[in-house]
Amino acid sequence: MHAIHVRNAILLVASLVATAAWAHADEGMWLFSRPPTKQLKEKYGFDVDAKWLEHVQKSCVRISTGGSGSIVSSTGLVMTNHHVGADMLQKLSTGENNLIEKGFYAKTTAEEVKCPAIEMEVLWSIEDATDRVQGAAKPDMSSADANTARRKMMATIEKESEDATGLKSEVVTLYQGGRYHLYRYKRYTDVRLVMAPEKGIAFYGGDPDNFEYPRYDLDMCFFRIYENEKPLAPEHYLRWSRQGVAANDLVFVAGHPGRTERLYTVDHLKFLRDVVYPISMRNLWRREVQLATFSGRGEEFRRIAEEDYFGVQNSRKARTGIFAGLLDPRLIAGKEAAEKALRAAVDKNPEWKKKWGDAWDQIANAEHAYAGFYTRHTAPGVGRGSLGTLFGMARTLVRLAEEKPKPSSDRLREYRDSNLKTVELQLFSPAPLYDDLEIEDLSSGLQLMAEMLGADDPVVVKALGGLSPRARAEQAIHGTKLKDPAERKRIADGGSAAINASASAKGGADPLIQLAMDLDAENRAVRKRYEDTIDSAEREGYSKIAAAQFAVNGEDQYPDATFTLRLSYGAVTPYQDDGKQVAPFTNFAGLYERAKERKNEGPFQIPARFAAAKDKLNPNTPFNFISTCDIIGGNSGSPVIDRAGDVIGLIFDGNIQSLILDIAYTSEQARAVAVDTRAIIESMRKVYDCGALADEIERR
Amino acid sequence: MHAIHVRNAILLVASLVATAAWAHADEGMWLFSRPPTKQLKEKYGFDVDAKWLEHVQKSCVRISTGGSGSIVSSTGLVMTNHHVGADMLQKLSTGENNLIEKGFYAKTTAEEVKCPAIEMEVLWSIEDATDRVQGAAKPDMSSADANTARRKMMATIEKESEDATGLKSEVVTLYQGGRYHLYRYKRYTDVRLVMAPEKGIAFYGGDPDNFEYPRYDLDMCFFRIYENEKPLAPEHYLRWSRQGVAANDLVFVAGHPGRTERLYTVDHLKFLRDVVYPISMRNLWRREVQLATFSGRGEEFRRIAEEDYFGVQNSRKARTGIFAGLLDPRLIAGKEAAEKALRAAVDKNPEWKKKWGDAWDQIANAEHAYAGFYTRHTAPGVGRGSLGTLFGMARTLVRLAEEKPKPSSDRLREYRDSNLKTVELQLFSPAPLYDDLEIEDLSSGLQLMAEMLGADDPVVVKALGGLSPRARAEQAIHGTKLKDPAERKRIADGGSAAINASASAKGGADPLIQLAMDLDAENRAVRKRYEDTIDSAEREGYSKIAAAQFAVNGEDQYPDATFTLRLSYGAVTPYQDDGKQVAPFTNFAGLYERAKERKNEGPFQIPARFAAAKDKLNPNTPFNFISTCDIIGGNSGSPVIDRAGDVIGLIFDGNIQSLILDIAYTSEQARAVAVDTRAIIESMRKVYDCGALADEIERR
Repeated sequence: MHAIHVRNAILLVASLVATAAWAHADEGMWLFSRPPTKQLKEKYGFDVDAKWLEHVQKSCVRISTGGSGSIVSSTGLVMTNHHVGADMLQKLSTGENNLIEKGFYAKTTAEEVKCPAIEMEVLWSIEDATDRVQGAAKPDMSSADANTARRKMMATIEKESEDATGLKSEVVTLYQGGRYHLYRYKRYTDVRLVMAPEKGIAFYGGDPDNFEYPRYDLDMCFFRIYENEKPLAPEHYLRWSRQGVAANDLVFVAGHPGRTERLYTVDHLKFLRDVVYPISMRNLWRREVQLATFSGRGEEFRRIAEEDYFGVQNSRKARTGIFAGLLDPRLIAGKEAAEKALRAAVDKNPEWKKKWGDAWDQIANAEHAYAGFYTRHTAPGVGRGSLGTLFGMARTLVRLAEEKPKPSSDRLREYRDSNLKTVELQLFSPAPLYDDLEIEDLSSGLQLMAEMLGADDPVVVKALGGLSPRARAEQAIHGTKLKDPAERKRIADGGSAAINASASAKGGADPLIQLAMDLDAENRAVRKRYEDTIDSAEREGYSKIAAAQFAVNGEDQYPDATFTLRLSYGAVTPYQDDGKQVAPFTNFAGLYERAKERKNEGPFQIPARFAAAKDKLNPNTPFNFISTCDIIGGNSGSPVIDRAGDVIGLIFDGNIQSLILDIAYTSEQARAVAVDTRAIIESMRKVYDCGALADEIERR
Repeated sequence: MHAIHVRNAILLVASLVATAAWAHADEGMWLFSRPPTKQLKEKYGFDVDAKWLEHVQKSCVRISTGGSGSIVSSTGLVMTNHHVGADMLQKLSTGENNLIEKGFYAKTTAEEVKCPAIEMEVLWSIEDATDRVQGAAKPDMSSADANTARRKMMATIEKESEDATGLKSEVVTLYQGGRYHLYRYKRYTDVRLVMAPEKGIAFYGGDPDNFEYPRYDLDMCFFRIYENEKPLAPEHYLRWSRQGVAANDLVFVAGHPGRTERLYTVDHLKFLRDVVYPISMRNLWRREVQLATFSGRGEEFRRIAEEDYFGVQNSRKARTGIFAGLLDPRLIAGKEAAEKALRAAVDKNPEWKKKWGDAWDQIANAEHAYAGFYTRHTAPGVGRGSLGTLFGMARTLVRLAEEKPKPSSDRLREYRDSNLKTVELQLFSPAPLYDDLEIEDLSSGLQLMAEMLGADDPVVVKALGGLSPRARAEQAIHGTKLKDPAERKRIADGGSAAINASASAKGGADPLIQLAMDLDAENRAVRKRYEDTIDSAEREGYSKIAAAQFAVNGEDQYPDATFTLRLSYGAVTPYQDDGKQVAPFTNFAGLYERAKERKNEGPFQIPARFAAAKDKLNPNTPFNFISTCDIIGGNSGSPVIDRAGDVIGLIFDGNIQSLILDIAYTSEQARAVAVDTRAIIESMRKVYDCGALADEIERR
């Protein structure tokens, strides 16, 4: 129903653009180190204390497949979304045993299946490192050198912390460079699959109902964290609420929103609108059609591309909503008004003006310069675009060999010591790779290079080696030995010597290693240009703007999302759509009605087990519900929590009106969408015969 | 299956690029005024004579929905493809009576249904007008003036011809400007629907099998031309072959190939590759995803967008194949070699060098200049892109008012007298228009303007009027009165006065008329820039290259396709694919096997009537067959003809390897795909209960 609802999303723009960026209704993705204490007290009479915060913080997990989750039992059970776990479900599936299609349940811990290359992290401590990071940049340095110095200091701080604590340590850039915090995580990599329903109910309604409401999705998946081959005995886990949530209740979401652009300057937003989105949307449309075509070749093609295809459709729908917001002149006008007010406040104070007055122009100039090579910086091969999983591994091998011998702080940032385990976990993953899909991805990526740069560009000519994109991709994928994890391990262990041996091997180098080597210099150069001229200017400019914001509006502000732990709050409230009130809860009865309305066809077909269980299920069981909590992509799988700190829901989506939360918050129609914990228990007991799992969860 | 076959298409590129552009195997889309007499005699021992040519020419029809057809009975019955007729089927359908889904058969002439706004044209005569058109450009004129003078002369010749003969007259540009021919047509607009099968069998295999072979499609549709309320008694019509076609037979295709680029210079091809295709593919991917999303909103949305969606998918698949060819360095290398040889021959002769030697650079310079405003020239609103059917009508009304008072030769070319009836037929069409689809199209088009030009471009700001693309589209479509054909007629009849009255009406102008007026000046300016600087240079350059070609290689050459009548020839022969021979015929038995192989799901589902008739049908009936005939998009619906001039098949597709015929011909794997006339008769008699129609067709 996207088209109708995009309209609605736009109608409400008028209402939100008039507000300044700060402190609006239930707005905010708050740092756990700076919670919205005052707002909660004033609006909801709730006193948030350190103990509550610590309990919630240490019960939450960040999942490396790009989502959030929470520990919900004393034996390390983790609850997240089906669509967060689906990457693992796909990797654990075969043509004969498709877990995405059929679902999975391990009746005993012995049946729980170990997942390849997944990490779950629990945030353990937060420290401010702003002074050290910003202090590394000396006043006489060029912007590029200052940026390098800051990056080096971030790596140094991380290494020191890891050496001292043994915890995974990460310096997080907040307020686009206004603050730097050191986050330490407990990191778990032995994660096993416990239970997943079939996709037909987890993603009921498919792409047409994605980002819509009312909704009827059982978007859940359960894993278990193991430590030393035993289920984790966590210090903290969320108890299952006995009574569940009711309309108008205050609720919280604790999770990892991925990225927002609320603090962007107007010129930066226009750069998104006129440069970034036209290119990124084009690439999504392109990939969606290509993967649909690939999937049409047969059932096994469909299966191996399924998660990529979902990911592309999901991003396309989300970005369509954000882009619609950016293209609404009223939204830009609202942002302009807020920016004008802030700049006027800065300009009135001579000291502020001197320190921060040029920040907006600095960012505008950076984006203007960036427009000149944005295409190159995002194209596959020379920029950030993908040439497939196998090529990514080849590039990692080539770079590991070059970077690892350097001191940690001198390396490309992702190869710093504190991240090496993550890099190697992915690189040596035993997850299956499929020639057909890798050829499709490499061929599509090589063609996109040519589309973006022109086929006569020397780097394109070099990458194609006289062949068409597809012929080149077939040659490289059929010829590479990197499909074998042992071969990747061998080369990684062998370092430069192994890379050079490959390059000079009889019969020629491994074609993917060769391709990665051929593209490496230019890719590094484009990246350096970006870091030296754009990233540096943005960090400088935004650190000034953040300082100005703090000075003008006080410290009580939250930063843009950075895929780190945040706390949102809000209420379970209805909204008006086309003059009608949309109720905050759906129930199982509504599911069967929706199926009837759409003739039980396509994504609206009720899966067999749910159809069979219809008479057993209590039709009045709350199924999905909404709240005004401020969330965005990355929050998928976050627990919804009540005042007591108990879990009452599982975030899986936002409605279509919430998509522009990327740019600006509104509580008028935007809603976070969650699975009700009561639906989880009811379906476990009545549909999936998972009584033992339900018991474990409810055991408090 | 596109991905695999695209590869195959590219493997054969190596074999075709070594050949020069001319006289290769069964190559050529020949003019009826310059048939391949010598080739047919030498290779096939066939003497093509004037009587045979006239009979075939006057039995063929050009269909304004973008395809070809042929008259196949003494009472004006026209055979074409289902996918050519589908535009009419859609316009004649309602939510309750969906002719595309269900098919149609008029048992009596009384039941035949009149089609809105369709034209069928029969080519009646051909005259060379090169000297008059080229002579209109005087040596002292600027390129722009010369181009204007040629265009005026074309309109003058057409008007003279129409006044003298009463036939629709059109000056056709051949060899990209090397020749100008005057084509006169008998024009029919009373066309009635007689019979169509359901889309499920006409387009069996859907997008996955589109442009593939083997194939099992009954892609047929029958109309009847009426004159003075009676079925046409044509001077010529094709007789139905008694015995049908056999392997290795010589066959002909007579139809209207739309567009090829075989004579393009290398620089022009690179312009296609690096500028045109990246933009046009992007727009197709975009539209495909948007229309898929629109269709997902519900059954009625799917129905009203069905033909647009098919058209986009079809273009996307065709262009994907052409683009893959353009991106193959081996194809460009072959073209370079051929061009080098021609230029060397020209340069060797001082007189030729002086006359024609600069042609290639002239075109290269033109394309370089064109790259600077190609985006603007193709964007909706300011350029060629669409803002929907209703906006197109608003623009036509605004322009009719301005153009009609001018002399015919001074008008924008499409408003010349000889084309006015066609313009008005479309403008006053009673075919249904749907608000939802028009809003979708206008909104998408306005957004594309912003994507292509940037949202701060003054013309975008003006077009949006302070609203988002969707809000603006809703305002305009809900507010316009142009949905009523009578209102369009009223404004067209009222001319400028009616337009001005609308613009100054109380409550404001009709919002679509206003939008068309707001965009008119810039659209005209961009078009003029193209015509004065690009089109003029191309025409001059290519007229030189054509002259050089004729001088060096002789006159025995065919021009690129121009959606005018051409004759192709070839043989019904197998080809090798991945080491296996692909047989030239399929049969009904193969259809049921294919369905079984794909689990009778989605586009591979056998329609109910065909499933029910399985035991009645002779399983050995030839269903589809291939030949080496040189065809391209626009040939859809062309008759396949034997030596006797009898019809033995109905072209509906080419295989995936044929897509690069756009750029260069090859007979190694490229094949034209046709429905066998025996399958048509067998299904009429055994599946559709259309015995009377089969009798009419077979009556000879």
